[in-house]
Amino acid sequence: MKTLNIGLIGTGFMGKAHAIALKAAPTVFSLPAFPVCELLAEVNDELAAHKATELGFTRSTGDWRALVEDPKVDVVDICAPNFLHKEMALAAIAAGKHVYAEKPLALSAADAAAMVEAAESSGVKTLVGFNYIRNSATQLAREIIASGEIGELVHFRGRHNEDYLSDPTSPLDWHTCRATAGAGALGDLGSHILNMAEFLTGQHIVEVFGQLQTVTARRPLPGNSGGFGEVENDDHAQALLRFDGGLIGNIETSRIATGRKMGLAYTVTGTRGSLVFDQERMSELQLYTSEGPEGRRGFRTLLVGPEHPDYAAFSPAAGHGLGYNDQKIIEIRDLVEGIVSGKPLYPDFHAAWRVNRMIDAIEASHVEGHWTRV
Amino acid sequence: MKTLNIGLIGTGFMGKAHAIALKAAPTVFSLPAFPVCELLAEVNDELAAHKATELGFTRSTGDWRALVEDPKVDVVDICAPNFLHKEMALAAIAAGKHVYAEKPLALSAADAAAMVEAAESSGVKTLVGFNYIRNSATQLAREIIASGEIGELVHFRGRHNEDYLSDPTSPLDWHTCRATAGAGALGDLGSHILNMAEFLTGQHIVEVFGQLQTVTARRPLPGNSGGFGEVENDDHAQALLRFDGGLIGNIETSRIATGRKMGLAYTVTGTRGSLVFDQERMSELQLYTSEGPEGRRGFRTLLVGPEHPDYAAFSPAAGHGLGYNDQKIIEIRDLVEGIVSGKPLYPDFHAAWRVNRMIDAIEASHVEGHWTRV
Amino acid sequence: MKTLNIGLIGTGFMGKAHAIALKAAPTVFSLPAFPVCELLAEVNDELAAHKATELGFTRSTGDWRALVEDPKVDVVDICAPNFLHKEMALAAIAAGKHVYAEKPLALSAADAAAMVEAAESSGVKTLVGFNYIRNSATQLAREIIASGEIGELVHFRGRHNEDYLSDPTSPLDWHTCRATAGAGALGDLGSHILNMAEFLTGQHIVEVFGQLQTVTARRPLPGNSGGFGEVENDDHAQALLRFDGGLIGNIETSRIATGRKMGLAYTVTGTRGSLVFDQERMSELQLYTSEGPEGRRGFRTLLVGPEHPDYAAFSPAAGHGLGYNDQKIIEIRDLVEGIVSGKPLYPDFHAAWRVNRMIDAIEASHVEGHWTRV
Amino acid sequence: MKTLNIGLIGTGFMGKAHAIALKAAPTVFSLPAFPVCELLAEVNDELAAHKATELGFTRSTGDWRALVEDPKVDVVDICAPNFLHKEMALAAIAAGKHVYAEKPLALSAADAAAMVEAAESSGVKTLVGFNYIRNSATQLAREIIASGEIGELVHFRGRHNEDYLSDPTSPLDWHTCRATAGAGALGDLGSHILNMAEFLTGQHIVEVFGQLQTVTARRPLPGNSGGFGEVENDDHAQALLRFDGGLIGNIETSRIATGRKMGLAYTVTGTRGSLVFDQERMSELQLYTSEGPEGRRGFRTLLVGPEHPDYAAFSPAAGHGLGYNDQKIIEIRDLVEGIVSGKPLYPDFHAAWRVNRMIDAIEASHVEGHWTRV
Repeated sequence: MKTLNIGLIGTGFMGKAHAIALKAAPTVFSLPAFPVCELLAEVNDELAAHKATELGFTRSTGDWRALVEDPKVDVVDICAPNFLHKEMALAAIAAGKHVYAEKPLALSAADAAAMVEAAESSGVKTLVGFNYIRNSATQLAREIIASGEIGELVHFRGRHNEDYLSDPTSPLDWHTCRATAGAGALGDLGSHILNMAEFLTGQHIVEVFGQLQTVTARRPLPGNSGGFGEVENDDHAQALLRFDGGLIGNIETSRIATGRKMGLAYTVTGTRGSLVFDQERMSELQLYTSEGPEGRRGFRTLLVGPEHPDYAAFSPAAGHGLGYNDQKIIEIRDLVEGIVSGKPLYPDFHAAWRVNRMIDAIEASHVEGHWTRV
Repeated sequence: MKTLNIGLIGTGFMGKAHAIALKAAPTVFSLPAFPVCELLAEVNDELAAHKATELGFTRSTGDWRALVEDPKVDVVDICAPNFLHKEMALAAIAAGKHVYAEKPLALSAADAAAMVEAAESSGVKTLVGFNYIRNSATQLAREIIASGEIGELVHFRGRHNEDYLSDPTSPLDWHTCRATAGAGALGDLGSHILNMAEFLTGQHIVEVFGQLQTVTARRPLPGNSGGFGEVENDDHAQALLRFDGGLIGNIETSRIATGRKMGLAYTVTGTRGSLVFDQERMSELQLYTSEGPEGRRGFRTLLVGPEHPDYAAFSPAAGHGLGYNDQKIIEIRDLVEGIVSGKPLYPDFHAAWRVNRMIDAIEASHVEGHWTRV
Repeated sequence: MKTLNIGLIGTGFMGKAHAIALKAAPTVFSLPAFPVCELLAEVNDELAAHKATELGFTRSTGDWRALVEDPKVDVVDICAPNFLHKEMALAAIAAGKHVYAEKPLALSAADAAAMVEAAESSGVKTLVGFNYIRNSATQLAREIIASGEIGELVHFRGRHNEDYLSDPTSPLDWHTCRATAGAGALGDLGSHILNMAEFLTGQHIVEVFGQLQTVTARRPLPGNSGGFGEVENDDHAQALLRFDGGLIGNIETSRIATGRKMGLAYTVTGTRGSLVFDQERMSELQLYTSEGPEGRRGFRTLLVGPEHPDYAAFSPAAGHGLGYNDQKIIEIRDLVEGIVSGKPLYPDFHAAWRVNRMIDAIEASHVEGHWTRV
Repeated sequence: MKTLNIGLIGTGFMGKAHAIALKAAPTVFSLPAFPVCELLAEVNDELAAHKATELGFTRSTGDWRALVEDPKVDVVDICAPNFLHKEMALAAIAAGKHVYAEKPLALSAADAAAMVEAAESSGVKTLVGFNYIRNSATQLAREIIASGEIGELVHFRGRHNEDYLSDPTSPLDWHTCRATAGAGALGDLGSHILNMAEFLTGQHIVEVFGQLQTVTARRPLPGNSGGFGEVENDDHAQALLRFDGGLIGNIETSRIATGRKMGLAYTVTGTRGSLVFDQERMSELQLYTSEGPEGRRGFRTLLVGPEHPDYAAFSPAAGHGLGYNDQKIIEIRDLVEGIVSGKPLYPDFHAAWRVNRMIDAIEASHVEGHWTRV
């Protein structure tokens, strides 16, 4: 069987999720090539070796540049901090590797554009890890929308709210610093819901009007120095949206939404039905259709099942539920099929660049006070 | 016992709800005066007489001006179509009557201003029927916010979405015509959520940026003529908000939100907790607080009970549930206490005028494309 | 207009609910006679006079026997403690009055039988206040079942759980004493769910096997004497059921179900669909049907609306919600129509006697350890 | 690193789930030995070879006896049909292998007893795949109960309802035949909820009273012969329960519960709180506690997070959700730790035997019509 050698950079939350998915994917799905956990890079040799054992990689290195240039590596899988995405991706592309990167692709649209250009001129395949669009329930939502079951779309409402910085005494970290994170909640979480909006509706967001706010302007420095420093990006943001198909909508994103843990949610309204989804209940989708007698209409809870996209590979029985890592398993299937079988990869760098452009446009509209084209 | 004689104008949905509430209120609450269903006006004598029997009023008239000037009437209760509110209220005030009017107060802020001025110079008492703020669960929400239990407020999200014009083949009616309705969804339903935003937060909305859309521009004429006419106001609208206390937020309102029947809902986020409410489950409030060990935190469902505002008058046992008309019963209690005992009435014409000003500002910002002061 | 003079005995929780409903019903519904709040009885003249003013009754008396024999009273409405139901009902029947009594009808099937016999030989009309069956959502459930929309019934599951004695240090009261309450949770709450089971399925429960338990055998005496006394009836009970149509099922009832406030809930399963209802969300019904493609099936939330039984009288718009007292308003409509227009009254004393027989059979089966016929 | 060689028999639903979990477990958890997918058995060589490739096993065989005796195999993992469990397990034990078997352990308590005896006299380790008890939310429930947070337990209510035979025209299959399945819904699904009841409460069920019913007595023969045959076991069953700690409870199980897909659910009531769980929303647990002011109490939704058992290995962030297969990954961790590190394995054959004894006692009580000891 064909193999595809993966070189993973970074072993935090996302690095481990990628590793789990790489291990499970060939058993869940019938893949055109076997993804091999070949090489792992971390900040130093020792940590790299330790993590390679832990996550099941054959070799390890303390130098990500060595990984990028390793002749056995087919795909560079970037789970390093966001501010390193650009440099690593450009190096990987220069070395002729396919690139699988976590989101957001870059800290700015300009950076993303450079990455897109490099990828497109080199011809390597790219995929960006907006994993929530691979969840069966959300794929089902797209299918329902695309089929016209809920009629013409009239409104999109989305949010991705969490509360990891809800406590005003939580210290500064990489999230709060523009050089490491770019935008704040808007970049970290808003990127998901903006991507989701386009994925679900099949339309492009063409104009935005945004509002950002840093609620806690100063936070304790990390460590216990007693000092304080400035928060450099938004704690929460919201925007009104115009889509190219005529749809309007709005999104909201926050890292201080007390109580929300994985608060990605959307409502898509059409002329003949509506969909409501909440990622905290990721294995169900609420569907309303204007069918049948008035007195028998209502939002119905569809539990994901084998009739829905990609579910049957995990379980033949409905309602058994997918988990977070299962989304990544589907993503790996798409990655392998995209590279080996030539299926279109979505979102590739080009599609992910749109997300950066939307973020930049929301920030610009906030500053300038008027609608801004993406 | 003291009495307060009510003259009701209009017997549609709201007129009947007022009548039911007037009948039940003195038994539910201990009132400082007994509200008497004295006189009812409809468009002609016959209908008025019929409705008076049906709704339990002593006398009736086909001429609302006669009602307004009737010496026995203490309070003019206006449940007539919105476009008549101004004329009726001004006449009632001129006759020295207290005025209890349904929302929205007027079709424009200018009209509302005239009504406020008249009421204030005459000294009569006024109340506008934004009944959802009287629901026990929502009064509880305000109490929780005001007490600081969820910390400093950081965000308000609200919507009032329904689907009564979701079907694009539904004909034109008074809702779709500017002369009879003023703004569309924004006036009819958005008025509730804008009032709610200020009621809950205890802050004023000072600046707005709105977007309106008429999705179905032309609809069949009423009757079966086969002809079509123009829809003159918004099918749905959304706005970003700035409050005077620093809070930001957004609202959404729609009459084409397929599947939503009584879709008023809000999420209020504070630094130490959050509240989530949905009027379709009007007897429960979701509360999250950042208290206790992390692993035991979650949104909890508070069922309204005797510890909560005004519930015990309806039932001594928790969870038994209030209904739509119970909100009106509370409103009647407030009306009677406001007039007879001098308790402050909220929202009186002055507070309701704010709602008209917010609607106008949202419309203006939509046209002009920039933030607009209320 | 015809009138129907009501004599109310007892002004606790239920007495007030009856009074509210009597006041509102003629405005909500078009009734064949106007129910007049004529006479009110309480334990002494002073309290009776005070309550008559509060609840809006014309006259009052400290002697319930005087009420029963008052020539102007057409209907004796018994909201007195359960242990008095029998004596009062027999006196009322003897005086030729119609009787409207709160549930449970009696403390035992033998007592109930005597009441049935008296009522039937005298020819007066009777109605027992199992109000939960009048809720629109539950009437809708019955309609769906009766129409065959969910196929042949295969299973009934019901519970009525509350937590009013959940705290083991709550003192003894009338609920815990056999002479005043008869059975414990089974009589107070179980009576509702047993009646509901027959109402919904349209079948009779013919055989039961029950289990009762008194979890807290001794509780503090009322007052602060420091003494303890014995609890004389069940804290919770459960039973397996056989229906005459072949259906099986089970019920559960508790007064120590920590967290449950109005925990009446049922699931009715048929060969082609299912219904799920929870009284704590009394204005919605979950419906599943095996229709349409597998991937689009799910429990749907029906919000009560004008297409559903009795809802339109309260509101012309769906989703606005009924409350606890609205159920009583519907009950009053049924009472008046039953007495004045001769519509069948359900549950009359005869039907309510069944509930007492089921309770007795559950208790007997518990003692004897085998299936027991009702 | 140490290895543990797995020999898998059977590659249906459960076989694949085991394979996925075996692949992912070493990356999710830090294991004391690496589980190697060594040998796979299916009904013939060809299918076995095909499945070995598909599921990632090194070798394959068409003869399960060869697998059982293969010297490299350390653990025999039985995912074959239930009626083969006994023969396979006895052979594996005779060959000195540890046994990991799917539930139910056997078709009867007598069979299970023989298996227990063999395992105990040989000293091999055993584990039975009641995977739902490994879900983080359910482990959390056990933790909360064990810690006394909800006080003394007073009631257990559980169900495991599905609808895979809801359609009366579904043909006969292995589920409906006593020789292949033993009990019907009671054996297939009831086994889970009975095991769950003991796991959660930490108490043994000592006495039961059950009721079984075969609603659809005859079903079409498989294939399209047009013939019909008899269903030999229960379509649904219910039982009242007595636990050795004084607790009472009831369970319900069904394969004809129209609309239920993965309908395992429980409510555990204590003197100071309650827990409610539904496997269709497997990543959340509802907790009520009688703490704080009355007006702030309610069931709260705990989303599983890193503070809860085993969750952090999958994700460091709360609310991201576990899926069905993640339960099996936790089970593999327990298997490996039990065998390699000597941690107690639960439920081993001995504990699983209890489930068979409970099933048999429920069936016996149904036939004999009285309480039956387990």
